[in-house]
Amino acid sequence: MTLPLDPAENLAALIRCPSVTPAEGGALTALANMLKPLGFSIERPVFSESGTPDIENLYARLSGDGPHLMFAGHTDVVPPGDESAWKHPPFSATIDNGEIYGRGAVDMKGGIACFAAAVARYSAEHGPFKGSISFLITGDEEGPAINGTVKLLEWAKARGERWDAAIVGEPTNPERLGDMIKIGRRGSVSGTIVVHGVQGHAAYPHLAENPVRGLVTLVEGLLDPLLDEGTQDFQPSNLEVTTIDVGNPATNVIPAKATASFNIRFNDSWSEETIMAEIHNRLDRAAATTRLRPGRETPINYELLWRDRPSPVFLTRDDKLIGTLSASIEAVTGRKPQLSTSGGTSDARFIKDYCPVVEFGLVGQTMHMVDERAALSDLEMLTRIYQRFLADFFA
Amino acid sequence: MTLPLDPAENLAALIRCPSVTPAEGGALTALANMLKPLGFSIERPVFSESGTPDIENLYARLSGDGPHLMFAGHTDVVPPGDESAWKHPPFSATIDNGEIYGRGAVDMKGGIACFAAAVARYSAEHGPFKGSISFLITGDEEGPAINGTVKLLEWAKARGERWDAAIVGEPTNPERLGDMIKIGRRGSVSGTIVVHGVQGHAAYPHLAENPVRGLVTLVEGLLDPLLDEGTQDFQPSNLEVTTIDVGNPATNVIPAKATASFNIRFNDSWSEETIMAEIHNRLDRAAATTRLRPGRETPINYELLWRDRPSPVFLTRDDKLIGTLSASIEAVTGRKPQLSTSGGTSDARFIKDYCPVVEFGLVGQTMHMVDERAALSDLEMLTRIYQRFLADFFA
Repeated sequence: MTLPLDPAENLAALIRCPSVTPAEGGALTALANMLKPLGFSIERPVFSESGTPDIENLYARLSGDGPHLMFAGHTDVVPPGDESAWKHPPFSATIDNGEIYGRGAVDMKGGIACFAAAVARYSAEHGPFKGSISFLITGDEEGPAINGTVKLLEWAKARGERWDAAIVGEPTNPERLGDMIKIGRRGSVSGTIVVHGVQGHAAYPHLAENPVRGLVTLVEGLLDPLLDEGTQDFQPSNLEVTTIDVGNPATNVIPAKATASFNIRFNDSWSEETIMAEIHNRLDRAAATTRLRPGRETPINYELLWRDRPSPVFLTRDDKLIGTLSASIEAVTGRKPQLSTSGGTSDARFIKDYCPVVEFGLVGQTMHMVDERAALSDLEMLTRIYQRFLADFFA
Repeated sequence: MTLPLDPAENLAALIRCPSVTPAEGGALTALANMLKPLGFSIERPVFSESGTPDIENLYARLSGDGPHLMFAGHTDVVPPGDESAWKHPPFSATIDNGEIYGRGAVDMKGGIACFAAAVARYSAEHGPFKGSISFLITGDEEGPAINGTVKLLEWAKARGERWDAAIVGEPTNPERLGDMIKIGRRGSVSGTIVVHGVQGHAAYPHLAENPVRGLVTLVEGLLDPLLDEGTQDFQPSNLEVTTIDVGNPATNVIPAKATASFNIRFNDSWSEETIMAEIHNRLDRAAATTRLRPGRETPINYELLWRDRPSPVFLTRDDKLIGTLSASIEAVTGRKPQLSTSGGTSDARFIKDYCPVVEFGLVGQTMHMVDERAALSDLEMLTRIYQRFLADFFA
């Protein structure tokens, strides 16, 4: 059996598996075939939940004495979109001008390919690990994320697995490899406001109650003032109203109902509970105002519905993990990575309940786009960074 | 030939014609049959315009020496809706407990039926008129109103017709016969605002520009402060935002575009031109503010599209016309009518360019509703009011 020493070969094998969520597409099998020669034991738990497709997952474990490092990620990919718009077919792994093309090249089959290569090279150089390594890989990160990382963590914990640190291999670098490590993420909550009015003729507003007036008042109360100015480790929290909908085509009719939805990305000056309480307070306060509703005295009649599952904010404070990874990046790239908490949510928000977690992978520029691709030089550098990290982490 | 002396009989004949816009349904023929025995000459011009149905109209003229009074209205009716919800079939003209049921009973076949009866009774009592009377009746008031009163007025004017005063027989009384004469109407303009932003991910708001923030800012600028406090003859002008629409289902996406539509009912402190200029000014002023758009300096990128045809504001100041009608109402009902400019627009806004016009008809409570109906006693009283008015007007 050959060892998976070449990250580009590993990545090509993974790209050729059309693993668009929820399809496994052969990607987890391809990964298992890389890890078996390295001595990993492989488990392939399938999780189910009514209303969502069954999902295959992979947990691979290489045991030794010492700390236990988790590498986490996903082999599923978003759909390629218009395949004819691609320079090379999205599951062909064509190499062109020093770049390997394919859906998932950077998000995040590339990270997995490099970490497998790093483990292979480390083993070849150092022999048996002074510690444990596990790959915790889901096929459900880009989809509903119901039968993926959350259940895989619970499943592993129930089998007695414990970890000392975790790296998520998502593409974290905005422009160049070495730009950025993610050491935390803002939380996210979403809600919908429904304002109930009284339908009527636009010429007789006193016989109606226009819910648009109330909704605009509430939206203003949500947006102003700013939630905070940011914290030492985080950007300011931010609220975006993502839609307002009334759907009334008649110019001369005052509608009965108006709705608005919003999404908040909040930093570590809030918890899910306190940010949700703040929103309730802002809405109740705004509901009492009459500036845009002259002649009205009753509070705005509204409902607030929280949507989706809230994501908690988290910040990893493990100096050894962050310091070791930063030093490895600097040693290989000559660049001191920014320690960032920016951007959207990731599966790291689930892992942080089990062990300290950081995120570092390829450059994200082409993720989810046509012609997603990774530079071969980046794959080689990322492999060296991971290998250096393994050496220092297990030293 | 029998004379149309009984308003309830006249109304029953009209209700039995299912003249839902644009169908004539026999209603204009039924009216012509009432007017011919009184000596009216009848014309039935049909008007056409591409994109709208052809519409039949009626112009009936009784000539004599003296002033020329126009009675204006429409025989078309709105659809009956769920016919099974009606106590009596909507085109049956069933009399039940002193009320006559049917679509159009008050809006406004009833007004026509009473005016025909008033003319018949007056002729029977006084013989030849000391003046001219015309019926200007359209079949397109409840629909697009393209091939109706506007063209009928132009058509008649082109034939040399001139009028000294007009009564529109729309239902003007909120609760009891004699409550209210309409002596003018507010104007109406409608518009749509489109705000253009930059689509993006809700976690990266600095890379996007949320048009909802701009739209809410513009809507606030429209609503506050109030347009005016009202005038001697008119209610305050009023602006209602009738819809806001974005249509973005994704919680984590900042949308590219947001739209809002509004309708303004304006009084005689404005003209169409000045109110439209005011709206432009308010929007431009609001577009420059950044309170809900921190970190933005460019004005909100918006378009304003005026919708529909604006309606002018008008006020009839003919003391003889208004005084004669008020006195007739008071003599018959014992009630002094309020001289009002409230409510929506009516075809009177077109007639005011030809002669002084007032509106008086039945009680409007059941108009456009299931079980639209008129009290027989109201039909009798309205006939007497119109007859008294004829006597005084032509005295």
